[in-house]
Amino acid sequence: MARPRRSDDTRQLLVEEGAAGFLVNGYHGTGIKQVLDAVGVPKGSFYNYFDSKEAFGQAVIECHSQCIQRNLAAAFGSDADPIAGLRVFFERLTAEFAENDYTGGCLIVNLGAELEGSTVLRESLSAAFRAWRDRVAEALRAAQELGTIRADIPATELADLLIEAWEGAVVRMKIDRTLEPLHKCLARLLDDYFRP
Amino acid sequence: MARPRRSDDTRQLLVEEGAAGFLVNGYHGTGIKQVLDAVGVPKGSFYNYFDSKEAFGQAVIECHSQCIQRNLAAAFGSDADPIAGLRVFFERLTAEFAENDYTGGCLIVNLGAELEGSTVLRESLSAAFRAWRDRVAEALRAAQELGTIRADIPATELADLLIEAWEGAVVRMKIDRTLEPLHKCLARLLDDYFRP
Repeated sequence: MARPRRSDDTRQLLVEEGAAGFLVNGYHGTGIKQVLDAVGVPKGSFYNYFDSKEAFGQAVIECHSQCIQRNLAAAFGSDADPIAGLRVFFERLTAEFAENDYTGGCLIVNLGAELEGSTVLRESLSAAFRAWRDRVAEALRAAQELGTIRADIPATELADLLIEAWEGAVVRMKIDRTLEPLHKCLARLLDDYFRP
Repeated sequence: MARPRRSDDTRQLLVEEGAAGFLVNGYHGTGIKQVLDAVGVPKGSFYNYFDSKEAFGQAVIECHSQCIQRNLAAAFGSDADPIAGLRVFFERLTAEFAENDYTGGCLIVNLGAELEGSTVLRESLSAAFRAWRDRVAEALRAAQELGTIRADIPATELADLLIEAWEGAVVRMKIDRTLEPLHKCLARLLDDYFRP
């Protein structure tokens, strides 16, 4: 299908507005119309940017995944020690949650809990989760080589546990409106179980 | 406000239908009308049973919490060893997830991730989470006294970590359609970190 020329800036604004909407109201609770209205795009123009709401959801998840990767790169860039980098990454997330008054949480766990029917979106979430896990595993592997993390469990397994426990703690944070689950998750795993 | 006499059975059927709907379609994605239709209750009768959709949501969460408590009691009843009881509890959940083809997952984490605005529902979820955590902590404490679980970390903290990691693993199971995250979560925590 031929399409009119589109503005990449507008597409990006729609994706960012979608991410904000999905985070607070979920995928099903976020109407395309409200996203278009917020960005000031006429109602009929949505299909100039995306084939479907599902394709839009996919773009939002991919954008969020890239955001996690940028945050990881920034956190690891700030310190040569991989565990210190991981702490910076989680501390920045924690500060952001506190700023947002414990609402929102993590788009991946929110959509992972919500979405059932769409294979496309499930695969996007799976790829986002895996990319995150892989980068955290890389840091844990480097720490294993430095001897600052136990080396008897594969780094990938430690990363899976850390991220899944973190995601559960983020939901608990939202329910109880406190950062305590996040602090405890890192204290139990990074500061204790993962020690050499 | 005076209310007509209501049937407790019908109320319970509405709650069960609501739980099934919320699990798959979320709170916002489940219409009161579809719940009433499924149970065969006339549209106008909803307010004979519940003050609002929020009160209905609260009843669904409380019913789900009681269901977790019954499942815990049944699992612990089947074996004198508290850790064996915990394993039975999680194995039964795992078997149920597999039967449902990895869809649905856990109502508490799904609604915890979805719901933002309602204090009433957040408090219901918090109470459900805490009741679950408390019963698991009780089993872990008994195991600590038997010497089958490490006693240097409070049982409540171990229970928080176990349930939060489990909830994160349940979301990952939904995304990846595999039981592996659940098995790994128990292997890493119950079979390793929690050992004396």
